[in-house]
Amino acid sequence: MRYSPLITDLYELTMLAGYLKEQMHDKPAVFDLYFRTNPFEGGYAVFAGLEPALDALAGLRFTEDELAYLAGLGLFDRDFIAFLRDFRFRGTVVAPPEGTVVFANEPLCTVSGTLAETQLVETLLLNIINFQTLVATKAARVCHAAAGAEVIEFGLRRAQGPDGGLSAARAACVGGATGTSNVLAGMRFDLPVRGTHAHSWVQAFPDELTAFQAYADAFPDSTVLLVDTYDTLKSGVPNAIIVALRLRQRGHELRGIRLDSGDLAYLSREARRMLDEAGFPEVRILASNELDEQVIDSIRDEGGRVDIYGVGTRLVTASGAGGVALGGVYKLVAIDHEPKMKVTSDIAKATLPGEKRVLRVQDADGHFIQDVVCLAGENTPAPGDTVFDPTNPLRHTDLREGTEPVDLRTKVMADGRRTRPAESLTDMAARCREQLELLPAGTRRFVNPHRYKVSISERLKDLRGEMMNAAHIGRRRL
Amino acid sequence: MRYSPLITDLYELTMLAGYLKEQMHDKPAVFDLYFRTNPFEGGYAVFAGLEPALDALAGLRFTEDELAYLAGLGLFDRDFIAFLRDFRFRGTVVAPPEGTVVFANEPLCTVSGTLAETQLVETLLLNIINFQTLVATKAARVCHAAAGAEVIEFGLRRAQGPDGGLSAARAACVGGATGTSNVLAGMRFDLPVRGTHAHSWVQAFPDELTAFQAYADAFPDSTVLLVDTYDTLKSGVPNAIIVALRLRQRGHELRGIRLDSGDLAYLSREARRMLDEAGFPEVRILASNELDEQVIDSIRDEGGRVDIYGVGTRLVTASGAGGVALGGVYKLVAIDHEPKMKVTSDIAKATLPGEKRVLRVQDADGHFIQDVVCLAGENTPAPGDTVFDPTNPLRHTDLREGTEPVDLRTKVMADGRRTRPAESLTDMAARCREQLELLPAGTRRFVNPHRYKVSISERLKDLRGEMMNAAHIGRRRL
Repeated sequence: MRYSPLITDLYELTMLAGYLKEQMHDKPAVFDLYFRTNPFEGGYAVFAGLEPALDALAGLRFTEDELAYLAGLGLFDRDFIAFLRDFRFRGTVVAPPEGTVVFANEPLCTVSGTLAETQLVETLLLNIINFQTLVATKAARVCHAAAGAEVIEFGLRRAQGPDGGLSAARAACVGGATGTSNVLAGMRFDLPVRGTHAHSWVQAFPDELTAFQAYADAFPDSTVLLVDTYDTLKSGVPNAIIVALRLRQRGHELRGIRLDSGDLAYLSREARRMLDEAGFPEVRILASNELDEQVIDSIRDEGGRVDIYGVGTRLVTASGAGGVALGGVYKLVAIDHEPKMKVTSDIAKATLPGEKRVLRVQDADGHFIQDVVCLAGENTPAPGDTVFDPTNPLRHTDLREGTEPVDLRTKVMADGRRTRPAESLTDMAARCREQLELLPAGTRRFVNPHRYKVSISERLKDLRGEMMNAAHIGRRRL
Repeated sequence: MRYSPLITDLYELTMLAGYLKEQMHDKPAVFDLYFRTNPFEGGYAVFAGLEPALDALAGLRFTEDELAYLAGLGLFDRDFIAFLRDFRFRGTVVAPPEGTVVFANEPLCTVSGTLAETQLVETLLLNIINFQTLVATKAARVCHAAAGAEVIEFGLRRAQGPDGGLSAARAACVGGATGTSNVLAGMRFDLPVRGTHAHSWVQAFPDELTAFQAYADAFPDSTVLLVDTYDTLKSGVPNAIIVALRLRQRGHELRGIRLDSGDLAYLSREARRMLDEAGFPEVRILASNELDEQVIDSIRDEGGRVDIYGVGTRLVTASGAGGVALGGVYKLVAIDHEPKMKVTSDIAKATLPGEKRVLRVQDADGHFIQDVVCLAGENTPAPGDTVFDPTNPLRHTDLREGTEPVDLRTKVMADGRRTRPAESLTDMAARCREQLELLPAGTRRFVNPHRYKVSISERLKDLRGEMMNAAHIGRRRL
């Protein structure tokens, strides 16, 4: 898939033209991509979107049509259009692999290269990574609520455009979904595709039983029957059982039934009982209809017997408290090898200056203790070293003995080329699953989650302090 | 742009395979696409997405790669794959033009053709029309709040994937936005592209004034300066005024300033005062930062002096009460020329059976009085005729004298081909603007809006009643 370099806000291009005019376009620059608040008022996020982002960077080229369009805007001169014609992204990207559990205020992607190339890719990177990280996080939450039951992504019809559905299916599977109803996503990303049938199938036949039987005839080994068109317990489930018996006589087994309306906790308990009594304990119960982590939580609380949750709208649009969009930002942290920061009165909005490393401190069993952000040039903080709360320097802790800080990120692109082949979604999903298990208890809680600690090193704290002081002195001089 | 027929839920394909096996695929069928609740707890919606949907239908073809993928799923036999290879959409679509103001529970698109072709396109149509209608509606609300100030779409970085951003920019302009920051959307849809610069531009220079001056040098006739990097009123606006003076000396004028943080009502009032006093009443003030209709409403309430609102995240993700997704559905209403309906105990969820027309009753001045849904075969309801509330048949009204019912929809596709060339976005936006003015007062209100009446004709009410009775009798016989 080609990503057009015009997938950008206009200002990236006008700034680029300005930098070119000022002959600043070749200055070395470093940008950090990060977010300031965990989505959904939760305790963590699941990083996703890196591979498509790298694809986008590696393939960034302006076509002649695109150049002609830009030239026609009346904003840009010939030199700039010529510059764009030769433009390639040749920068470096440091990032964690997809499926990594990450937290607010730690750099995710760090992009370095010329000011021109690092600035131009801002919108494209944010677009891809914001959305996929958001949906992967939502999926992880939904899977946590499902507590071992399967979760399938069903949201294409409510997704934000065809590509919204495609990216959402991909990201959902990074975060823990085991399949999707989206056939193109299945083909593109090699994901299991799943589905049942619609109410219209039942309506197209004279009655429900005939409809069920016809579907089972067509797909004797993969039939999941939607049982709520008329009356779930009085008509749908009994008819499904008749079809299941007939299938068994012919050497097949009904795969499942789907509940799509009503009280899913109650209906799934009753359906389970009816299926079990009829000799079908293996027939699985799939539930759908405006599900999210909270609804699934209640269904389980009320003893619901759902084996598979089909989650649509609220997964692909990532709706929920603090949701809808990940507020990822992309901030300049160094130029000309000098650290830069945005100085604001609100310390939570102040950037962390300079090129940095992100370390994850783990105990001997691999459990995550805390993350530490330090400067790229300093020694790795070691047990005994003091690290600081980034927003309140009076709060600090000493790194515990017996723990080991591990780099969370590696160089995934150098000179505009990937440093390693693209990972499979299966590997990303496995990483996500493993890492979620290593989080401190309570971090995955939906309400008031435990706040996982992201600290900064003493040297980074000091650098930031010096730069804030210098800025204030500078401002007073104005 | 090609829309793959795999942009679909798997079940559309399994149902199709089933219909083929049952030799039902060629039966004539009719589906209605509609939604059950106006989005954002509002009083209306703005229909959008039709032209891309028609493009998608007209071009629907399976490639050999796609067929090979489907064959490899192990679900489908050779006959079905051969059927798909020859598949073309040759159906009929009836719909209003984009930019039409529409309401819950009236059919928007009606798709007729073979059961196969009408069923296959369900997910694709819903995906395109749900999202674009949602965003166009959001844009109309935001523009209503802006009360004449300009609204520009700024949301690409928080959109749901690259295409999410593209469709959102298009739909926002149908609903009233006058431009976008999204360059690809500008090129693709011939929309005005707009932008300023980022904080990083200011940070890349030794100080704010140098940065402003450099930008103005590069774009002397289109400079909008972002004034909040350090301190909006103490540094940003004064520096912008210095640059404005210098520009004027060289025969140019500063276009505007942008506020992106802080109290936008207060800051815009103060900035306006400072600009006016310095002799720049024409410099426009652009505000951005997590805006939506409610925030814009408060800014205006508090005497804010914003000329242009840059609206991002909450426009392109259509967040807000009752938002995030339009619950559009696609329901079978006729098969084999016989009306069909989904009978449920909840009358609000019961479909309206049969092929239908949607009439808009207007007074002599064109004001919208109410909409009426009637059967395609009956005479157009005339003044004096009684029409009924679709959910409560005891509530009815007589069509007023001096009003005229006009068909809201036309046949936009016949035999798989458009009946007319694609409309321009400018025409759609003009239609939207005009129609919003013709709505009854209060329908555009954000809180507890006036509920515009959508009634059904007596014959449609009677048909639905008969079909519900027949279904209940049929069920008792079970």
